Amino acid sequence: MKPRDKKRLQKFRDNLVRLRQERGLSQRALSFLCDVDYSRISKIETDENINLNLTTLFELAKGLGVHPKELIDYDFDFVKKD
Amino acid sequence: MKPRDKKRLQKFRDNLVRLRQERGLSQRALSFLCDVDYSRISKIETDENINLNLTTLFELAKGLGVHPKELIDYDFDFVKKD
Repeated sequence: MKPRDKKRLQKFRDNLVRLRQERGLSQRALSFLCDVDYSRISKIETDENINLNLTTLFELAKGLGVHPKELIDYDFDFVKKD
Repeated sequence: MKPRDKKRLQKFRDNLVRLRQERGLSQRALSFLCDVDYSRISKIETDENINLNLTTLFELAKGLGVHPKELIDYDFDFVKKD
């Protein structure tokens, strides 16, 4: 995986953990609220080589009760968050 | 692929095509502006079974000159766009 992708995904992981914890949800609790298995959530949050697809992103957003765009609402090297 | 995922990805494809065409970009022109191959862009826009990962989403956004969240800024079955 390219360094730029690793950086972008690390920000995603940080954002996912923040959104989950802000809602007082454990990884297991989140897995009960969407169609993403507990072990997959744990890997997504910790494994820097994991790249997830859009449908998983959408399900995580459903579990968190947020619009999917909130999961990627942070600064990117090629654009500033408005 | 589950029907709900197909619907969600169809909306993504429609949104991607709209954003690209609004900027007067062909698929080939977009491929020169990011790290996504022309044939991959064509498949992403037309193949309903294609699921793309986050790093590809980020690169497409870079090529379009938008924040990645704009590529998924539409209504979802589990949440209304604000």
